[in-house]
Amino acid sequence: MAATEAETVASISCSGHGRAFLDGLVVNGKPICECNACFTGPDCSNFLSDCVVDADSGDPTFLEPFWEQHAASSAIVMAGWHRMSYEFNDGSLISEELKKHIRQVHDIVGNAVTDGRFIIFGAGATQLLNAAVRAISPEGSSSPEKVVASTPYYPVYKEQTEFLNSKDYKFSGDTLLWKSSAIDSSSSQNFIEFVTSPNNPDGQLKKAVLRGPFVKTIHDLAYYWPHFTAIPAPADEDLIIFTLSKLTGHAGSRFGWAIIKDEAVYQRMLTYMSLSTYGVSRETQLRVLKLLKVVIEGKGREMYEFGYKTMKTRWDQLSKSVSMSKRFSIQDLETHYCSFSGKVKKSSPAFAWLKCERQEDKHCYEVLKAAHITGRDGRLFGAESRYVRLSMVRSQDNFDLLLQRIEKLVSEEYSSKSSMAPSVS
Amino acid sequence: MAATEAETVASISCSGHGRAFLDGLVVNGKPICECNACFTGPDCSNFLSDCVVDADSGDPTFLEPFWEQHAASSAIVMAGWHRMSYEFNDGSLISEELKKHIRQVHDIVGNAVTDGRFIIFGAGATQLLNAAVRAISPEGSSSPEKVVASTPYYPVYKEQTEFLNSKDYKFSGDTLLWKSSAIDSSSSQNFIEFVTSPNNPDGQLKKAVLRGPFVKTIHDLAYYWPHFTAIPAPADEDLIIFTLSKLTGHAGSRFGWAIIKDEAVYQRMLTYMSLSTYGVSRETQLRVLKLLKVVIEGKGREMYEFGYKTMKTRWDQLSKSVSMSKRFSIQDLETHYCSFSGKVKKSSPAFAWLKCERQEDKHCYEVLKAAHITGRDGRLFGAESRYVRLSMVRSQDNFDLLLQRIEKLVSEEYSSKSSMAPSVS
Repeated sequence: MAATEAETVASISCSGHGRAFLDGLVVNGKPICECNACFTGPDCSNFLSDCVVDADSGDPTFLEPFWEQHAASSAIVMAGWHRMSYEFNDGSLISEELKKHIRQVHDIVGNAVTDGRFIIFGAGATQLLNAAVRAISPEGSSSPEKVVASTPYYPVYKEQTEFLNSKDYKFSGDTLLWKSSAIDSSSSQNFIEFVTSPNNPDGQLKKAVLRGPFVKTIHDLAYYWPHFTAIPAPADEDLIIFTLSKLTGHAGSRFGWAIIKDEAVYQRMLTYMSLSTYGVSRETQLRVLKLLKVVIEGKGREMYEFGYKTMKTRWDQLSKSVSMSKRFSIQDLETHYCSFSGKVKKSSPAFAWLKCERQEDKHCYEVLKAAHITGRDGRLFGAESRYVRLSMVRSQDNFDLLLQRIEKLVSEEYSSKSSMAPSVS
Repeated sequence: MAATEAETVASISCSGHGRAFLDGLVVNGKPICECNACFTGPDCSNFLSDCVVDADSGDPTFLEPFWEQHAASSAIVMAGWHRMSYEFNDGSLISEELKKHIRQVHDIVGNAVTDGRFIIFGAGATQLLNAAVRAISPEGSSSPEKVVASTPYYPVYKEQTEFLNSKDYKFSGDTLLWKSSAIDSSSSQNFIEFVTSPNNPDGQLKKAVLRGPFVKTIHDLAYYWPHFTAIPAPADEDLIIFTLSKLTGHAGSRFGWAIIKDEAVYQRMLTYMSLSTYGVSRETQLRVLKLLKVVIEGKGREMYEFGYKTMKTRWDQLSKSVSMSKRFSIQDLETHYCSFSGKVKKSSPAFAWLKCERQEDKHCYEVLKAAHITGRDGRLFGAESRYVRLSMVRSQDNFDLLLQRIEKLVSEEYSSKSSMAPSVS
C-alpha cells in the first residue's frame, strides 16, 4: 500500500518544473504539483516571465536530479513500529551505524580527521552552532564570552546569539575589532571565534584570526565538500560542524553533526541536545543512513562529480556574464590543490558575493530588486550595503532565470537607454 | 529493494522480547536483535532474573503492539528526492496537511479547541517548552520573568531553564511561594506558570495556581489523552503544548505541537524555531501524517481503546499490590466524567507516584534500588525524597517485571524475615 502511494506520487507529471509529494496538499484525492518558483499551472508548465527570481536562500536543491537518478537505491520503507523509543538500545540518542557511515564519508573525501574524535548529531548546523557556543561558555562567569566572526559572516551567528540572550555569551561583531585584546592576557576577556571555511558568503578558505589563550574556535565547515571547493587537507580542529544539507542537499531533513576533540565539551553538547530537543528524530537518522550508503557506493565519487560539475558550470556562466560588466563585480577565488580529486581545482562556490561598483548604487540589494532579483543584503553579513549574496545552489530553473536576469542587467550597460539613465529604479 | 530490506528486518525473530531495526548494528550482514531490558541472547530468549528493572523513563512503548497490529497501514515509503528543500512550497516549515490532521485528532477526542488558533510544530514538547518561555518573556526587561510550577513538577522545566541561563527568565520554584506576590501589582514581578494536566508525575488534573495581571501560563497537556485520563472538556487556554510521544507512543520521532491564541506569541515561537533548528524534519512530518491517518481511521477510537485498556489494567494491578502494603502508598485519583467515552472513567495514569511511609525509609529511591527497581527520585520533581515516580508506560515485559518486584517487596512485609529487619538494604 505504502509503495503504491509512493509510486503514484512519483508518477505525477509536473513538466520538469515542479514535484508532487506524499504529504502535499490534496485536491480531488491526489497530491497536486508544487511548482518551482516562476512556474505555475496544474502541471507547472506556465512560465511567469515577469516574476522575481529568488536568489536569497541557500536551499541546495541543485542535487535533486542526482537523487532522482538514484530513486530506487535511496528509498526507505519505515514501519509504524520503527524505533518508537526515546533512546537507542545503548541508551544514547545517536545511531552507531550512522556515526560509522559519517566517518566513512569523511575518510573517502579526506576533509576531516575523525579518528579518536567524538561525534554528536543535531538538527542541522543551526542547532549545533548554538550547542557549541553554549558548551564552551562557562556558566555564571563574571563577563560573558565574546562571540565573534570575520566580516562578511553567516548572519545566523549573530541572530541566534542575540535572540537567545544568554547571560554567558554575547555577539560582539568582527574579529578585527578584537585582535589586540585577544592576546592581552590582562584584559581577561574570553572569545569564541566562528571560522567559516569555505566562507559563507564569499567562498574563501579561511583560518582563525584571533590567537591567544582566551580564544576558542568553532569551525563551521558546512561547505567544505568537493561540490564547492578544493579539499587541500583534512581539517583537524577542536570543534568542527558539518551539515547534511550541503553534503547531499537534504536541507529539509535538519541533520548535522559536530566532530569534537575534548570530551568535556562533547559531554556538554550532549546535555544541550538532551535539554533542547532530546536528540534527532529516528526517521531522520534512518533516512540519512540510507542516503550516505548511496553516497559511499562504488568509489564514493559519483555525487561529488555531479555536484562539482553543476556548481562549476554555474560559476563559469555567472562569472563570464559579470566579467563584461563595469557596474558589478564578484569575488576572486584562488585555485587550490585538491587531495580528493588529485588535481588543482577551479572555483565552484555556492554563492556569488556581488558588489555594485557605481558610486550611486549604494544599495545593491535595491538595484537587484528593481531588476527582479532577490539577493541577501550585504549588511546582514556585517558588510556594506554595496554587497549582495546571490545563491547559486537552487534548482536549475532558478539558476537559469538568475543568469538571464544578470545578463540582461549587464547588457543594459551597453545599450543607449541605460547609458543615459545612470541607475535602474 | 527498500521493501525487501524492511520485510527482512521485520521477519527477524526476537522471541517477543526485542526487535531488529533497519538501522541496527549489523553482524554477518544483517541487523541483530535489540532485546528489551532484562532479556538477552541472539534472539532475546534469555531472561536475566536478577537484573534491575528500569521504571525511570517515561518511554511510551506500551503502544508498540498497536503499531505492530497496523504495520501495513502505518508504513511509509520515502524516495531519496522527497522534500529536500529547507521550506515547504508556501515558504513555511510546517506541513499544512499535517496541521489539518492534528486539528481532526483534537476534534475527535475533544481535548482541545483548535478553531481560530495558531499551530506550530517542534521537536517534541522538549523544544516547545523553551520556545514558549522564550516567546512570552520580553527581551531585555529589567528583571527576568519568574518561571514557576506546582510541586511535584516535571523536572525538565527547571533543568532546561537553568542550563540555557537566559537573561530574560529564571526558574523560581513552586507556585505556592509566589501566590501573594503574583496578585500584588506593586511588586512588578512577572510570572510564567507551567500547568501540567494530567500532572507529571502524579496524574492529577490541574488548573493554574497563580492569578493576576502579571501571570502568563503554559499548559503542558502531554498526557491529556484517553489512554491516561478522562477528558472532561476541551482545553481552551492561551498556550497549550502536546506531544506525539504520549499520543501515539513515537517518542523517538521528536514531534510535538503548540496551540496558541495570540498571534504575536505565535510569531515569536516561529522565530525561535527558525533560529533554534529551522523547523522539524520533513521525514518526521511525513511519518507523523501517516500515523495520524491510522489514528483517525474508522471512528478514530481503536488506538485509545487499546491504550486505555493497557494502562488501566496496569494501574489496577499495581494499585492492588500496593494496597496491601503499609510500607508504600500511591496517589489517589478521582474519577471524572469523560466526554470522549461518554462515561465516568476510572484512573489509568502513566506513572505511579509512590511514597515510602516508614519513618526510616527517607530515601525511597534507595529503598527501591535495593530491590532492583530504578525509579525517578522525588527530589527531581521538587518533592521530598520519600517519593519516587515509577513509569508504567514502557513495554509489557518491563511492566510485568516491575509488578513482580513490587509484589515481592510487599510480600516481604508479611514474611518473618522482613518483620525482623526494619529496612531493605
